[in-house]
Amino acid sequence: MSRYALLIVDMIKDNVQIGGKGPLDVEAAKIIPSINRLSDAFRRTGQKVVFACDSFMEGDFIFGGRMKPHAIRGTGGDHPLPELGMQPSDLFLPKRRMSSFHKTDLDQTLRTWGAETVVVCGIVTNVCVLLTAMDAIQNDFKAVIIRDACACHKPEIHEMTLGLYDPLILYPLIRIMTADEMVTELDALSL
Amino acid sequence: MSRYALLIVDMIKDNVQIGGKGPLDVEAAKIIPSINRLSDAFRRTGQKVVFACDSFMEGDFIFGGRMKPHAIRGTGGDHPLPELGMQPSDLFLPKRRMSSFHKTDLDQTLRTWGAETVVVCGIVTNVCVLLTAMDAIQNDFKAVIIRDACACHKPEIHEMTLGLYDPLILYPLIRIMTADEMVTELDALSL
Amino acid sequence: MSRYALLIVDMIKDNVQIGGKGPLDVEAAKIIPSINRLSDAFRRTGQKVVFACDSFMEGDFIFGGRMKPHAIRGTGGDHPLPELGMQPSDLFLPKRRMSSFHKTDLDQTLRTWGAETVVVCGIVTNVCVLLTAMDAIQNDFKAVIIRDACACHKPEIHEMTLGLYDPLILYPLIRIMTADEMVTELDALSL
Amino acid sequence: MSRYALLIVDMIKDNVQIGGKGPLDVEAAKIIPSINRLSDAFRRTGQKVVFACDSFMEGDFIFGGRMKPHAIRGTGGDHPLPELGMQPSDLFLPKRRMSSFHKTDLDQTLRTWGAETVVVCGIVTNVCVLLTAMDAIQNDFKAVIIRDACACHKPEIHEMTLGLYDPLILYPLIRIMTADEMVTELDALSL
Repeated sequence: MSRYALLIVDMIKDNVQIGGKGPLDVEAAKIIPSINRLSDAFRRTGQKVVFACDSFMEGDFIFGGRMKPHAIRGTGGDHPLPELGMQPSDLFLPKRRMSSFHKTDLDQTLRTWGAETVVVCGIVTNVCVLLTAMDAIQNDFKAVIIRDACACHKPEIHEMTLGLYDPLILYPLIRIMTADEMVTELDALSL
Repeated sequence: MSRYALLIVDMIKDNVQIGGKGPLDVEAAKIIPSINRLSDAFRRTGQKVVFACDSFMEGDFIFGGRMKPHAIRGTGGDHPLPELGMQPSDLFLPKRRMSSFHKTDLDQTLRTWGAETVVVCGIVTNVCVLLTAMDAIQNDFKAVIIRDACACHKPEIHEMTLGLYDPLILYPLIRIMTADEMVTELDALSL
Repeated sequence: MSRYALLIVDMIKDNVQIGGKGPLDVEAAKIIPSINRLSDAFRRTGQKVVFACDSFMEGDFIFGGRMKPHAIRGTGGDHPLPELGMQPSDLFLPKRRMSSFHKTDLDQTLRTWGAETVVVCGIVTNVCVLLTAMDAIQNDFKAVIIRDACACHKPEIHEMTLGLYDPLILYPLIRIMTADEMVTELDALSL
Repeated sequence: MSRYALLIVDMIKDNVQIGGKGPLDVEAAKIIPSINRLSDAFRRTGQKVVFACDSFMEGDFIFGGRMKPHAIRGTGGDHPLPELGMQPSDLFLPKRRMSSFHKTDLDQTLRTWGAETVVVCGIVTNVCVLLTAMDAIQNDFKAVIIRDACACHKPEIHEMTLGLYDPLILYPLIRIMTADEMVTELDALSL
């Protein structure tokens, strides 16, 4: 029984170059310590950790705009950053589009685990993180976005996104919290 | 064959009181002329018009936050504003959650029509309008958000939302346009 | 809280002509008393009743074979037979394809009600009834097919279908029962 | 562009023991030559081959009946039989339930390829093969079941299942053919 599940979104090799100078490389590197603190706390308290990772196919519709083909299924570029230390007990969830729920069995998995709350972190705040959190609510799970464990290529877009949904009328079904606050909430589970 | 489809989101009796003084009543009333101009142009050029309307059930999960029960299926409050003049040739699409694609057959309907582009307007910009446009892309349709035919209870949230996604890396799969620009694009179809 | 839900599948005006001489008219008429006994028992014991009804659109893919267009959404032919006495407390569920779960919110509705077991009756046994029962299991609900409340245009196809799945390795997640046995099971709920 | 896609269903290590004496081992072994002839013809004519494979999780609902846990994701028992010679150009599609379309992105993949016809073979005829073919139709693809490339643990159940749906009113949207007939149809594509 896992009442909470951590979703680490799109922190994959093709999206983030460790040591890279691109704006997203720089911003994504900053949140790695927070994500690792969260995943440690989830595992320590018996909660589940999911790596939800872009996993596209050649010819995919979404490459019809300015986005270059990347994160192609089976290339290895669609796998989590080694710096995040995925464990055998974690779930690797390839996803075809932005939301981690889009045409995946994530909702069924969460219900099988007994999860009620989905905690979302990773990149980028205003697209895949936001859409995953919103789809969690649409599928009747509570959602939390971790403020200091998400990032965009521009900090101001990250901040503006969080500002738009805090507080939303759906509160407290959706909450925006810090990693510290979430770890405290998890620790209270085992008391 | 309808290459474009207009989605008018959540412009229903329980969400908007015509003549009301609430912030959303005021903002939503302002976009009615633009929406009507759009739906006229869509019908005139042989394109489809869809009224995607909140249609909740008592006891729904989303009423577990601060949102009061409303738009309950079958009460009539879940029907479009008469000011929008829904026609028999339009599609009335009850939806259970924020996105018009969530657990509906909208994707199948759009493909049956041959639609390639989904044009989204209505309320509110940062939730149901945005999630519907994003789900259109996730389902391999091009998406357009009509800047002057969407609204929030606060104009600055409306503006901030559009600012976040204009231009997005998915451009031109997703575009933000004015009603005038869209009418011009539709008129060019029939030339 | 409704632990069981009755799904009455495709017993609509365009599918069954009361008093008609067609093979399906004759067979479907025979099960009306059993269905009415079931729906009475469900309502009496506080369980939910759903009318899952074909609701097609003009131009639908499935009309590309030998099946003639029928049960078109909004024509009235897609509504339940008056002989089945649909009540305001029942749910009318238009469905676009064979399974009652295909691109509908039925799974979400069942979970909102707290339903664990889906009881299926109606027509025809080897297509819409079977696919609805199988999709119930695929969505983590127990399923029951009511032997004497389902029908096909040929009794031997009805019998052969039930023979194929009784007992299935998924038993008792899927069971084939009589209307009498189900009414007894419902009555035991309230003891 | 792949106008046809071959779906090889559930021919995995945990389901079939090559050389085994169990009824399903014996019946499934008989269809391997036909499946290999099909997959060769699909690859030779530039059409796609998909291995749709049971991929369950511990604690899954479907293990609540008489079915023992098996084909658990990540154990290797959920991978195709080596005798079927999966190629790098084939798609490996883990599936969580019976239908290959249930909570997978198969429909999106097929449309990305331009596939119009789904050709189904494997095990078992009356459950996963049938439900996959029916879901193909529900998702607006034509479906073919290959008579001599499907099997059940009992030949009479296999035959009875095919008898139930041949010809169905949806014909020719759904067809039941032999492997020879399908190879001939594929060869005609390239003429």
